[in-house]
Amino acid sequence: MAVTGGPMAPGPSLSRDWADDRSDNHLNGLNSNTSATPLTQARTEHSAHSTELSPHRTSSSAQKTRSVLGLHPNAPIDEEHDHGPRSELMWSRIRTVLREPFAEFWGVAIMVMFGDGSVAQVLLSTGETTAPGGNGFGAYQSINWGWGLGVMLGLYVAGDSGAYLNPAITFCNCLYRQLPWRRFPVYFLAQILGGFVGSGIVYANYISAIDWFEGGKMRTVPPAKKATAGIFCTYPQPFVTKASQFFSEFIASALLMFVVFALKDPSNNGVPKSDKWFPLCLFFLIFGLGSCFGWETGYAINIARDFSPRLMSYAVGYGSEVWTAGGYYFWIPMVSPFLGCIFGGFLYDLFIYTGPSPINTPWLGLKHLMPSYARRARREHIRREKEEGVV
Amino acid sequence: MAVTGGPMAPGPSLSRDWADDRSDNHLNGLNSNTSATPLTQARTEHSAHSTELSPHRTSSSAQKTRSVLGLHPNAPIDEEHDHGPRSELMWSRIRTVLREPFAEFWGVAIMVMFGDGSVAQVLLSTGETTAPGGNGFGAYQSINWGWGLGVMLGLYVAGDSGAYLNPAITFCNCLYRQLPWRRFPVYFLAQILGGFVGSGIVYANYISAIDWFEGGKMRTVPPAKKATAGIFCTYPQPFVTKASQFFSEFIASALLMFVVFALKDPSNNGVPKSDKWFPLCLFFLIFGLGSCFGWETGYAINIARDFSPRLMSYAVGYGSEVWTAGGYYFWIPMVSPFLGCIFGGFLYDLFIYTGPSPINTPWLGLKHLMPSYARRARREHIRREKEEGVV
Amino acid sequence: MAVTGGPMAPGPSLSRDWADDRSDNHLNGLNSNTSATPLTQARTEHSAHSTELSPHRTSSSAQKTRSVLGLHPNAPIDEEHDHGPRSELMWSRIRTVLREPFAEFWGVAIMVMFGDGSVAQVLLSTGETTAPGGNGFGAYQSINWGWGLGVMLGLYVAGDSGAYLNPAITFCNCLYRQLPWRRFPVYFLAQILGGFVGSGIVYANYISAIDWFEGGKMRTVPPAKKATAGIFCTYPQPFVTKASQFFSEFIASALLMFVVFALKDPSNNGVPKSDKWFPLCLFFLIFGLGSCFGWETGYAINIARDFSPRLMSYAVGYGSEVWTAGGYYFWIPMVSPFLGCIFGGFLYDLFIYTGPSPINTPWLGLKHLMPSYARRARREHIRREKEEGVV
Amino acid sequence: MAVTGGPMAPGPSLSRDWADDRSDNHLNGLNSNTSATPLTQARTEHSAHSTELSPHRTSSSAQKTRSVLGLHPNAPIDEEHDHGPRSELMWSRIRTVLREPFAEFWGVAIMVMFGDGSVAQVLLSTGETTAPGGNGFGAYQSINWGWGLGVMLGLYVAGDSGAYLNPAITFCNCLYRQLPWRRFPVYFLAQILGGFVGSGIVYANYISAIDWFEGGKMRTVPPAKKATAGIFCTYPQPFVTKASQFFSEFIASALLMFVVFALKDPSNNGVPKSDKWFPLCLFFLIFGLGSCFGWETGYAINIARDFSPRLMSYAVGYGSEVWTAGGYYFWIPMVSPFLGCIFGGFLYDLFIYTGPSPINTPWLGLKHLMPSYARRARREHIRREKEEGVV
Repeated sequence: MAVTGGPMAPGPSLSRDWADDRSDNHLNGLNSNTSATPLTQARTEHSAHSTELSPHRTSSSAQKTRSVLGLHPNAPIDEEHDHGPRSELMWSRIRTVLREPFAEFWGVAIMVMFGDGSVAQVLLSTGETTAPGGNGFGAYQSINWGWGLGVMLGLYVAGDSGAYLNPAITFCNCLYRQLPWRRFPVYFLAQILGGFVGSGIVYANYISAIDWFEGGKMRTVPPAKKATAGIFCTYPQPFVTKASQFFSEFIASALLMFVVFALKDPSNNGVPKSDKWFPLCLFFLIFGLGSCFGWETGYAINIARDFSPRLMSYAVGYGSEVWTAGGYYFWIPMVSPFLGCIFGGFLYDLFIYTGPSPINTPWLGLKHLMPSYARRARREHIRREKEEGVV
Repeated sequence: MAVTGGPMAPGPSLSRDWADDRSDNHLNGLNSNTSATPLTQARTEHSAHSTELSPHRTSSSAQKTRSVLGLHPNAPIDEEHDHGPRSELMWSRIRTVLREPFAEFWGVAIMVMFGDGSVAQVLLSTGETTAPGGNGFGAYQSINWGWGLGVMLGLYVAGDSGAYLNPAITFCNCLYRQLPWRRFPVYFLAQILGGFVGSGIVYANYISAIDWFEGGKMRTVPPAKKATAGIFCTYPQPFVTKASQFFSEFIASALLMFVVFALKDPSNNGVPKSDKWFPLCLFFLIFGLGSCFGWETGYAINIARDFSPRLMSYAVGYGSEVWTAGGYYFWIPMVSPFLGCIFGGFLYDLFIYTGPSPINTPWLGLKHLMPSYARRARREHIRREKEEGVV
Repeated sequence: MAVTGGPMAPGPSLSRDWADDRSDNHLNGLNSNTSATPLTQARTEHSAHSTELSPHRTSSSAQKTRSVLGLHPNAPIDEEHDHGPRSELMWSRIRTVLREPFAEFWGVAIMVMFGDGSVAQVLLSTGETTAPGGNGFGAYQSINWGWGLGVMLGLYVAGDSGAYLNPAITFCNCLYRQLPWRRFPVYFLAQILGGFVGSGIVYANYISAIDWFEGGKMRTVPPAKKATAGIFCTYPQPFVTKASQFFSEFIASALLMFVVFALKDPSNNGVPKSDKWFPLCLFFLIFGLGSCFGWETGYAINIARDFSPRLMSYAVGYGSEVWTAGGYYFWIPMVSPFLGCIFGGFLYDLFIYTGPSPINTPWLGLKHLMPSYARRARREHIRREKEEGVV
Repeated sequence: MAVTGGPMAPGPSLSRDWADDRSDNHLNGLNSNTSATPLTQARTEHSAHSTELSPHRTSSSAQKTRSVLGLHPNAPIDEEHDHGPRSELMWSRIRTVLREPFAEFWGVAIMVMFGDGSVAQVLLSTGETTAPGGNGFGAYQSINWGWGLGVMLGLYVAGDSGAYLNPAITFCNCLYRQLPWRRFPVYFLAQILGGFVGSGIVYANYISAIDWFEGGKMRTVPPAKKATAGIFCTYPQPFVTKASQFFSEFIASALLMFVVFALKDPSNNGVPKSDKWFPLCLFFLIFGLGSCFGWETGYAINIARDFSPRLMSYAVGYGSEVWTAGGYYFWIPMVSPFLGCIFGGFLYDLFIYTGPSPINTPWLGLKHLMPSYARRARREHIRREKEEGVV
């Protein structure tokens, strides 16, 4: 913040402020026209200067391509990095354009590798007596650890994009927190691809163990006795009714969104304002969802963590049962997380959030759904686009 | 907060102080006439000015309603939020009035959803061989995780009210830390309701699993073989005498209050002065109570976590055994946590705390119980109310 | 630190510095003539001023009594606390005199209550099929949690004394880090008492469960089949030779001291300079010692955690087997932790520590053992005592 | 560091900056000519002045010896320490010369003691019914804890050398982050020795338990039924093909390097800029690798953790099967971690890192492999060495 304030801040103080700037609100300038709260970013008031600095970072052709993709024209790149001859390289330019999608892709891939990896290890080694301890390489709790720390480490890796890692959470940030809707498709695609690749790597890693466990080259889906499809995506318990399937995913997703919005609420006094604690809190949140709501349907709560691996497992030969199992259960973890997150975000904004949100407008924001209102918003958007170049 | 102190704080210090100010002691102005220590707040020296700012936040009619409810007239709301037209909406006004009760309600609800959810998952899936690992979806330790992180995440959610989450802890803050007694009833009600709703959601989520486990629509209470009432509230082990039941809850509650007071003691050099560590420490504390004192009576240590779910389970059809089981055990987790917390707080103030506390007055504060003293305190209170408007 | 520097630090910066002062090095003034590193304190360079402030805090009669006990004349009490009429109360004066012993007492008591409590719960409920999960209320790992978080929470509680919680660690701080030897006896006594009382509370809490488990009023000691003495203190595995018993405690204690000295080394670049992380690191360290070196002899590594509960169990009727079991094993966890900690501290100072330590003097400090050298040190000590009043 | 900059930094900022400076970037001056990112160090902008201070710390003869060993001439030692007569002692001079090797040695030794210790305890006590809980002293998850916290505590201990603790990670820092190649050999040697000594101590500690478990003085290697060689180094599961063995180590190592580079990337907005969180993140990372990729080959991912203990076990009499087991598996955890880490680092630099890295040069840095380029780099290096004395 104090970068422009040189004369006021002589000596070492300069670097301190600058350091703090970087640590908490680097992305800020990029979103200065919104109040979106990417998961890895705190809001501040001092971002004006970065609009001046940013053009030095992102070339104008890259800016155009990024705008077409729905991203902010300026990529979130450290000022010291990627300047000079290095940034002229073709690959560097591509990477600048695709910075956020790459970050989401790898964030989700890391998350799914740890998550599906933990299921694979526990499920395939069930009851192995040669393990230290004599009873398999892990228990159900290892899976809570795997998904919890997978999310935590994914958040660290994907810091440059806001680290949503979940299309439903991206969606709710567009809906409630003014993240531009235009960014949703490219984030969505990156997250879906990340889940596909991450689960594919787990499959590749455990292929000989799966052969050994299934007793050959066949691949089976629950409720088959030696089914291994449950490593990659979720299948419901047999006794759970369709309504309970839906509700179980719905409530877990609502809890997820409610707590994430609390953790990201700059007005909530219980939450550390610095983002340093957020990944650890998410570890506990995901661990908790797995410990408390992970039995009936396997707590998918994320289309990128369920649909993508399901597609991958279909591609490598698990057969059409991956779609038909559980009474065509597959659509529930696609739809329910969106609805659950929307409901959870609604509850938080209704009862606790006091900042700008559609819920905090007349008629709880339902006006926004009326055609006349939508037309007006569209005109306003176009006008702003003309004035400021991009939105 | 120091924003108004511009001339005194030139240069970058301004923003740093402001940032730190926000992070740790936002609620302060609201309690500037007390030395109460809400669980999510550190004490500072700079709160005088916020009484000037607050009137802009809370309308005078809302102030009156809040006073009637026993709350501080000014709601703890971020200065940047809820100004302008937004705060004129009727719902926003209601939310401003009920800010702390809403926070406590959701904090307790989140806590109970994770806590009871973990018991439900572990208990209902006991020994299921289809689980990864072949032995259920979690073990006893998952329940320690569930309650521990439920409290942690509840503290994050309920930051605006001080995040007591437990009537006994609110009570001891009134008794020992000058939290105004008038606030106790509305906090109490919100906490009790939160426990009721949170456990109700767990019941709704696991209803088909409970049917499957009990083998039909019946609902049974321990020590029945397939009892599921233990998901929601605590039942003692059969061999534990009434005295041991009482003592087990008493000692766990005393430990809880003793350590919480230590963690909130600004004079204790072992404790980080920032509140960032507090929720994590509570995770460890609750995990520890469950690991070490969770067997005999199930470590209720909180009437909102035991009585409310018990009532809920009675309402959904578990029958009158929820009250009669264990020799009318139900009253122990209602009474014992209060007495235990009072004793734990007494010990801490007696041996370690050096700040203002009734224990640190002549006759260990017992004078306060004398009628003559109580009359004098009442007169003093009324005088202060006249002078300052509210207390 | 900047308290005396008012003119240089106007406005809110003042409070910040002061706040940091409090958080990290409040105890410093008390040790300004030493370089002792209490476990909850970082070293700084700016402690001169507190010698001026302290006399306002501690009355001269209390100073004398504290000197007699071997404590620093000025008690570590927050400046804002315990002034005015409050500090005139007799009990407040006693508490001021016994501040550090009280802190150590409660720190050890909290530690032992969680630690022994976790053993009690796991051992007594072994295999209980009515538990959620169907297999007892916890497993061996719960005990790692119990001791780990017991130490962590004990450190928080005992911040005012330096939170050694272990006579062997106090001893090594006297030996290697210039903690005055005169303080050792009163710390030692407080720690021993804390272990006695803490384990007594655990016994009182589990008395009906112990009756149920042992099958009556008898009390037995390992290797009896239903022995419960192992709840309170450690007994070795039957196959472990005396040498291995000794070595197992020795190596665990050496590891403990080595890592604690690393975590407290202000020159070690891997360690956060703030003390906020220290209790969490100790949680991991103790958890690790229990997971890795906890089988053969039960990782006592602390006379206050082993001898005191053993005495308590002897007092409540476990019989003389508590002393004779394991071939009079009881003396090993009394002696070995001291020797192990001395060796661990020696290794750290020899290979890594570069600050003032006897090891960093000619002949590795062995000169200090020579009578002539000791006489000289004694004369030097008396001279300093005359000049500065106290040491 | 800013202590000498008094005039530029008046008032309390001085002490604050100095404190922060110390905490995060003490090592910086030593690497001011590189952009290497030792695991325990953040990059800053203010390191020029320390080249002036350092000569006071390290004598010129020590500087020469250090240069010969490939280390930076100035040892990373706190300015306040090791001055005056103390630093004249012969042992102090040796310690100054070997500072980083000592740190790496002890870091790896601590890591292996906890890691191998946890395997020893779990494996040797498998199914012991006398344990509290009735089923051994730990389960597979204890091993995840052991290695995770072993790495965490090792990082704390080895802060002065950068705390690589793994030759493959040192190698990748040379390759991608400009750590001078000359330092690799001495780090490598120290790490290998640390693993040897650490595992030797575990063997010494558990020798009587191993005798008891194996049923005599023999020592056996998996897949023997009572094999104990798996305590020290890794052996693959019998059904895993050679390709899967390689791939399992490769993918785990790539994940390790990818996430470590993310955690150390100053341009990644998801990562706390302070290093305080790094050891905790590594705990979660290693725990995750063990939970998710620890079954097939035992997640060696580190030659110092696998080869050295294997050599130790060979030396104490486990026989030549330690080399031949699993179809001469021993070379896989020697080679695969290097290749995996190189690949993981390559992916991170290709997709996310924007700072100076060979990947961010034309032809993805492959030019560096051409002889003509290498000759030029050599000349450049010699020129710089002449100008600046050392590199």
